[in-house]
Amino acid sequence: MNRNYQSFKKQARELTELRSILSTLTWDQETMIPTLGSSIRAGQLSTLAAVCHKRLTSPEMKEALEQLSEEPTLSLWQQTSVKEMQRQYDKAVKIPETLISELAKTTSLAYQAWVTARNDSNFSTFFPWLKKVVELKREEARCLQSSESLYEALLDEYEPKVTEFELDTLFESIRPKLSALLDRIQSSKQIPENSLAGDFPIHQQKIFGEKILTAMGFKWDAGRLDSSPHPFCTGLSPLDVRITTRYDEQDFSSSLFGIIHEGGHALYEQGLDLEHYGLPACEAISLGIHESQSRLWENQVARSRPFWEYWLPHLQKYFPQQLQGISLENFMHAINKVKASFIRVEADEITYGLHIILRYEIEKMLIGGDLEVEDIENVWNQKTHEYLGITPSCPSEGVLQDTHWSQGLIGYFPTYLLGTVYASQIFHSAQESIPELSEHIRAGRLYPLKEWLQKKIHQHGKTLSASELIQEISDETLTNQYFLNYLENKFSEIYDLKL
Amino acid sequence: MNRNYQSFKKQARELTELRSILSTLTWDQETMIPTLGSSIRAGQLSTLAAVCHKRLTSPEMKEALEQLSEEPTLSLWQQTSVKEMQRQYDKAVKIPETLISELAKTTSLAYQAWVTARNDSNFSTFFPWLKKVVELKREEARCLQSSESLYEALLDEYEPKVTEFELDTLFESIRPKLSALLDRIQSSKQIPENSLAGDFPIHQQKIFGEKILTAMGFKWDAGRLDSSPHPFCTGLSPLDVRITTRYDEQDFSSSLFGIIHEGGHALYEQGLDLEHYGLPACEAISLGIHESQSRLWENQVARSRPFWEYWLPHLQKYFPQQLQGISLENFMHAINKVKASFIRVEADEITYGLHIILRYEIEKMLIGGDLEVEDIENVWNQKTHEYLGITPSCPSEGVLQDTHWSQGLIGYFPTYLLGTVYASQIFHSAQESIPELSEHIRAGRLYPLKEWLQKKIHQHGKTLSASELIQEISDETLTNQYFLNYLENKFSEIYDLKL
Repeated sequence: MNRNYQSFKKQARELTELRSILSTLTWDQETMIPTLGSSIRAGQLSTLAAVCHKRLTSPEMKEALEQLSEEPTLSLWQQTSVKEMQRQYDKAVKIPETLISELAKTTSLAYQAWVTARNDSNFSTFFPWLKKVVELKREEARCLQSSESLYEALLDEYEPKVTEFELDTLFESIRPKLSALLDRIQSSKQIPENSLAGDFPIHQQKIFGEKILTAMGFKWDAGRLDSSPHPFCTGLSPLDVRITTRYDEQDFSSSLFGIIHEGGHALYEQGLDLEHYGLPACEAISLGIHESQSRLWENQVARSRPFWEYWLPHLQKYFPQQLQGISLENFMHAINKVKASFIRVEADEITYGLHIILRYEIEKMLIGGDLEVEDIENVWNQKTHEYLGITPSCPSEGVLQDTHWSQGLIGYFPTYLLGTVYASQIFHSAQESIPELSEHIRAGRLYPLKEWLQKKIHQHGKTLSASELIQEISDETLTNQYFLNYLENKFSEIYDLKL
Repeated sequence: MNRNYQSFKKQARELTELRSILSTLTWDQETMIPTLGSSIRAGQLSTLAAVCHKRLTSPEMKEALEQLSEEPTLSLWQQTSVKEMQRQYDKAVKIPETLISELAKTTSLAYQAWVTARNDSNFSTFFPWLKKVVELKREEARCLQSSESLYEALLDEYEPKVTEFELDTLFESIRPKLSALLDRIQSSKQIPENSLAGDFPIHQQKIFGEKILTAMGFKWDAGRLDSSPHPFCTGLSPLDVRITTRYDEQDFSSSLFGIIHEGGHALYEQGLDLEHYGLPACEAISLGIHESQSRLWENQVARSRPFWEYWLPHLQKYFPQQLQGISLENFMHAINKVKASFIRVEADEITYGLHIILRYEIEKMLIGGDLEVEDIENVWNQKTHEYLGITPSCPSEGVLQDTHWSQGLIGYFPTYLLGTVYASQIFHSAQESIPELSEHIRAGRLYPLKEWLQKKIHQHGKTLSASELIQEISDETLTNQYFLNYLENKFSEIYDLKL
């Protein structure tokens, strides 16, 4: 085979390995590291990240990419890999090393300041740090900018090729519909609070979660489940995918939906085509498509009636006292309760989108220079009131609740809602392709869906873009229609809404 | 401060960080990795090891070392660090890269062949691999050789500065004494087998082990305890020291002495002077001195009567049914039972040394060219009969029992016995320095000993050599006297021996 490509492939493979090591260290830091160990870990991470950056921007990489840029004999996987590496290379050389290290240092300190500020619910101590982060991210965006929109340059890191205009159009079409649906629900019959309250031993929660993961097709010889303060999934390779959840003894649903959500991510990582492991093409398409997999399993599957027709009796065996006599009807109400609330990660399927749109609008203005950091708390509170009808009483239930901005993750939030919209369209296609899908789920068979997702999405890596994938799967472009229909149908039934 | 030294220090720190990452990956592989993940991990380890090797042998490192070699203003820590890095540099550049990669590849395959061969107890399938490993290690030794003895060049990797002559003298003086003591014990009254048999839930074993580690002064905010097929300790930094043990439900003593042994190693790693972390001087002196710390805690402390006067009642609380009514006398007999047996890792304090001497003699002959690999099984069996009075009935209880040679660890075994001899001399000095040491141990106070070891040994890193350390602590050179006296006194009492 082409010798230039061989050299490229070796470099790519080693870069993948080094990045996987970075992920392993991060996983370890979230799950295993003793308290004091973190201070040394930070230095390790930054030293290894510098090794990765040097490899990506090396003269050897430059040469390999130049030689392959017009190579006609490459396969689709090879072409995609060269293009993706070129994209990463171009970004990496555009940002000066001083800015990279400044960002690393600032976000590390800003994160610590955020932890303290949130605990104290005091925005003023975090404010100067956020200001500095926003300045540096604007500088980064100016280095990367390739369209009129500065914000788009950051967005591209998480959701390549999506434009600000597309997101604006999508989100603006969704927002009033969500608000209207929320209003209708809030004026309908109310579901009692806490009908699932009880005492749920963590060990039992874990075993039941493992049972569901197994049914989803999670491969235990290629993955593991642990606990951490914030649930996450990390794919160290298709043969080593690790997810976490957090356990609350008073609420089994928090760990369980965490496990199913991260399990959806994990199936994507385990489903990548091992044959191409190490190539840039052998990775998930985008954060949005990744999120579509977690949302689809969490919401479309695991908050549906067919799913619990099968699983509720099993769950009751694990918690016989706690869930004695609860009906499927009441259970469905409890896990699908809609109520305007302050905290994004606790939000239901309807208000979740409103939380995201609020963040999207604010971060877009911050990067675009249309909002000063000093005004952010006011705007946050006003928008919360406008979209959700409630006003945060303190910053920890408002502007300070999420860690993302402190870590420099700006342009990340919209992928959550985009993923949710993708999920509806993808699930609709799955239902069309597998007419008996509901019957499968009702019988506890989750495998057909997993196989379909792997065949249609996971195994292709980046050889399709997000929009190509959606087109390929559903035979049309992305639309809000399936998402809105799904919510309308589901919650009309649960809340007995009149049209 | 000296600018050359600053450049050296930065390079050294980063090399330490990268090596610590390698150790983290190895720890993860032994404790956490899902089964299939290992195949990818091997590539990561080799890619990162190559990064480390390149850093160690880089032109920048060469220049820094040259500039500092005659720098007069360095402190003891700085001098020691420069010398130690120079030692590593010299070794690394002497071995051709082809040999390094050949060794890595061969030992990886030889290890797999060893696993199979041991399971099948069939030396012939491992034989060609061992032959290849020995050839490559002889080649490595020829590259590194700096004295008449080829073997010494390998030994130097694990126990710098010790000569083959010194080991020969020490071990030859010990061997007949151990054999004689073994004979006397085997002709004395016998202790019943299995007086500690029972069913010991792993969870309880773990909690009791943690309790003892805590009493030893193990810092939980700077370390952790897990389980793995083979117990080990890895110091990722003084603030992150991880030990493992393995649990046997039928035998609590296997996990417990594993925990205490590895705990001894861990206290060394946690006791290094954090101020100098990242410097080559801020590491343990040698494998032998490291082993002295684990042996001292395992044997001199945790197999002693004062220790169990305090801990036996606690142990009985954890296993009330299983250990009901066992007397201190019987317990001491059970944990100190002496009997010639085949497996080194299950050997008592007397026969352990004989197991090591046998391996030392064989590997010395292999590297020196005085023994062919084809004759190794015969020699093993003959020596086992000569030293222990028993003959292995199959290779898995003889020549195939240890993994070391398959992994290229030749020159490693003698550090186990050397460490055991160091331990006796060090513990004797501790008793002289802390006259009430037995009283402390009898009262459950292990902290004074830990503090003494940290002050005398741990905090100094490599600023003393092994022989300087022994001289400093005991005011004399290494001698077999304390080791032999310790065994004589201890086992005369337990077995009621006549002189």
